[in-house]
Amino acid sequence: MKLKSVGLTETKYFKIEGELKLDSGQKLKDVIIAYETYGQLNKEKNNAILVCHALSGDAHAAGWHTGDSKPGWWDMFIGPGKALDTNRFFIICSNVLGGCSGTTGPSSINPETGKEYGLDFPFITIKDMIHAQKKLVDSFKIKYLHCVIGGSMGGMQVLQWAVEYPEFVKKIVPIATTARTSPQQIAFNEVARQSIIKDPNWNGGNYYSTKGPEAGLSVARMIAHITYLSEEALYEKFGRDLQDKKELSYNFDPIPDFQVESYLHHQGESFVRRFDANTYLIVTKAIDYFDLSKNDSLREGFKSLKAKTQLISIESDWLYPSIQSLDILKALQANGVEAHFSEIKSSKGHDAFFIEFPQLNYVISRFLADNVVADIMIRSFSTLNENASLKDAAKIMVEEHLTHIPVVKDKKLIGIVTSWDLSKSIASNCDDLKQIMTKDVQYCKADDSIGEVAIKMKKNDISCLPVVTDDLKVEGLISTDQLSHLVSNY
Amino acid sequence: MKLKSVGLTETKYFKIEGELKLDSGQKLKDVIIAYETYGQLNKEKNNAILVCHALSGDAHAAGWHTGDSKPGWWDMFIGPGKALDTNRFFIICSNVLGGCSGTTGPSSINPETGKEYGLDFPFITIKDMIHAQKKLVDSFKIKYLHCVIGGSMGGMQVLQWAVEYPEFVKKIVPIATTARTSPQQIAFNEVARQSIIKDPNWNGGNYYSTKGPEAGLSVARMIAHITYLSEEALYEKFGRDLQDKKELSYNFDPIPDFQVESYLHHQGESFVRRFDANTYLIVTKAIDYFDLSKNDSLREGFKSLKAKTQLISIESDWLYPSIQSLDILKALQANGVEAHFSEIKSSKGHDAFFIEFPQLNYVISRFLADNVVADIMIRSFSTLNENASLKDAAKIMVEEHLTHIPVVKDKKLIGIVTSWDLSKSIASNCDDLKQIMTKDVQYCKADDSIGEVAIKMKKNDISCLPVVTDDLKVEGLISTDQLSHLVSNY
Repeated sequence: MKLKSVGLTETKYFKIEGELKLDSGQKLKDVIIAYETYGQLNKEKNNAILVCHALSGDAHAAGWHTGDSKPGWWDMFIGPGKALDTNRFFIICSNVLGGCSGTTGPSSINPETGKEYGLDFPFITIKDMIHAQKKLVDSFKIKYLHCVIGGSMGGMQVLQWAVEYPEFVKKIVPIATTARTSPQQIAFNEVARQSIIKDPNWNGGNYYSTKGPEAGLSVARMIAHITYLSEEALYEKFGRDLQDKKELSYNFDPIPDFQVESYLHHQGESFVRRFDANTYLIVTKAIDYFDLSKNDSLREGFKSLKAKTQLISIESDWLYPSIQSLDILKALQANGVEAHFSEIKSSKGHDAFFIEFPQLNYVISRFLADNVVADIMIRSFSTLNENASLKDAAKIMVEEHLTHIPVVKDKKLIGIVTSWDLSKSIASNCDDLKQIMTKDVQYCKADDSIGEVAIKMKKNDISCLPVVTDDLKVEGLISTDQLSHLVSNY
Repeated sequence: MKLKSVGLTETKYFKIEGELKLDSGQKLKDVIIAYETYGQLNKEKNNAILVCHALSGDAHAAGWHTGDSKPGWWDMFIGPGKALDTNRFFIICSNVLGGCSGTTGPSSINPETGKEYGLDFPFITIKDMIHAQKKLVDSFKIKYLHCVIGGSMGGMQVLQWAVEYPEFVKKIVPIATTARTSPQQIAFNEVARQSIIKDPNWNGGNYYSTKGPEAGLSVARMIAHITYLSEEALYEKFGRDLQDKKELSYNFDPIPDFQVESYLHHQGESFVRRFDANTYLIVTKAIDYFDLSKNDSLREGFKSLKAKTQLISIESDWLYPSIQSLDILKALQANGVEAHFSEIKSSKGHDAFFIEFPQLNYVISRFLADNVVADIMIRSFSTLNENASLKDAAKIMVEEHLTHIPVVKDKKLIGIVTSWDLSKSIASNCDDLKQIMTKDVQYCKADDSIGEVAIKMKKNDISCLPVVTDDLKVEGLISTDQLSHLVSNY
């Protein structure tokens, strides 16, 4: 399958009507959510996947903005034929509450003062972020989210979604994340914040008409950037190679001695151009506050969670080490939730979730892929009512390329007629559908696992099963054709 | 054995006459080295141990300064009966060149301008630091250093000593260190430096009559401090416990939310009171420049090194991980150097070398302990000349509690007379020393290993050996008494 880009995209804006009540007790009015979508929402409105971004991300997850030299931050995963396949899924990504890329945040205008919020912007939490996202998702009249996925702070939102809206989230993929921010993570965030706050140009958060705390913010970003890479990755990338010089300089040149220093300078400088310091403060506090445990128990904290879960960590990630994903796994499994764990083999460190395409793609595709009947069943097909003739059946088979047609009465399954039944009717000179059809029908449910259904079909030597609801209404068909197509994907 | 303090100590000052030529090609005049010593230099001047301090250390390694609430930074290791036993060793510790605790550094007065050096202070290297230390050590007319020991940047100096002065250093103990600063270590140092340099109060290094870059220096220290502790240590120390509050504050209170934040603030603030920002810049550059490899080979870089080596790393140290000590071990062993490696089991991270007293004490004591004859031989004893009488021999035996007396001619060993010989003379009625004494004497050398000598004594059923120089001059005695005392120490 050819991997394609979603092409040109643009950020759209959704206004949350009324007030958004926050964890802190404060309220925000006139909240705007910047978002992008890729792919089409199906008519059942159940193929939506929400992508949650990390600390410095934005709504532009895939495709290209006119004039940009780089695509969206997760472009390699989102598009036709990619892990988040836009041929199949409707992808939504929004900038978090408190952000600085279109969603209401400290740099937005406070409707009450007509000036930027600055530090008047209320503290927000990861829960506040997903409450805002829920308003956006609801605006599409989405039935439920097929999946919520994201790395780092994105992974925190993923977990919070599944805890907060257990019936609304079918699958989650929390990547390189934690269920409770560790003291080391808090420590790094606090040093970054201090670097901003101690910059005189921060000016108590009121800098929107002045220079702003560029020095402090760039140092904050440099600190964070070191934590995103493994020691090994730094060796591989730079070693002790010098930057544009052949010998150590023995001075504090503007061009630093080592490449790794120059790289960090560049990271700091480019961040300052695109990120708001107050957002950095507010959003890192949201990360620090994040703790899904209850009474010091993750198991208790996850009690409501039902979503099928694929945890992913990165071997060399020392900021969000694998052990933190394993803690989540244990808690979920103790609660009887279907939870899987994969560790990405990579020397790149935390940032590997932006990099290790093949492994992540494999794990995510497999997890999102068709593993319940609903994922692959045929949804548009004809049925016969009990009074139909064998000729009607034959016609449908030819026209719709079917070999099996459910027979229904008041939309409920009462039998099935197959192409083999047609042969039988010719051989026996009987053209009464009700006599010919199979009455003792095998069927399955939409949420049956594909593996079990495949076993059932093999055992009973059946090549097609009707998919029925609890009250026997036919909602789909699944055949060995669909099952064999699956195999071709792997 | 009771562990005792070295008691009250004070920092002394040594002036290096003339100029000190630096790696950078620059020179420093009138360099002052601040130092302390503990214990007594023996008359052979071969019992000196040099202790090298880490980035923020000073000369005050042990004992108490009048009025202080804390002893020196390695007090637990230095003192009577401790690993660096002042009953036996003469311990020297000096503040590094470029430092800010008494040794000439950026905050010292430049004799050429009459003002503080500031950024006019030349770049220095680890090699420059040990060159300066060598001048100090030489001032004591020390024959050779029994051992050089230190952790982190101290460990770098230790390695540099052994490479630079292979004949002058008998043993080294590099702790939690590296032979070449890694890109991750450089990265953390550079972010710390940027934090200082970007502080407007740094003012290009000229701040000695103004406020100084307190904000930048405190952030620098906070960054570094995180790297000194393991993730686990932070969990153990703080977890997610709040600081003087029962609930999250949802604001940027002066009192931060979490204990770990408050701890970092405290570390930053107290560092600012005792450390000079320009020294931080200069000394971290010395660390970054440190690379003992030659042609990318540590083995080649260590070619000159002869010192018996005890490497120590700390299991949970992610700043100077064990692999970096193992790289040194491999290079030394490939060169045929006697090198040992011990990993301290600790969850405390890099700073464990200030903390894990019992394990470190065990490893260091065992390594420093007597393992060549010179370490334990009796140095003051009488000899007999060839014309002495048996009665002289008997007298000495009684007075000096000896059973073996070497007989010398022109100070050279020609025989040995034992208490058993005396019995023999009485039994045989012969009182001619020369006839009675053993002429075919077994002996050993001062640098023979104790193990080998013990085997020799056992094999030849001898309870005492004279220790001789290459030209057979007697310089000591070693008996099974001394050997058995060793056993009692373990």
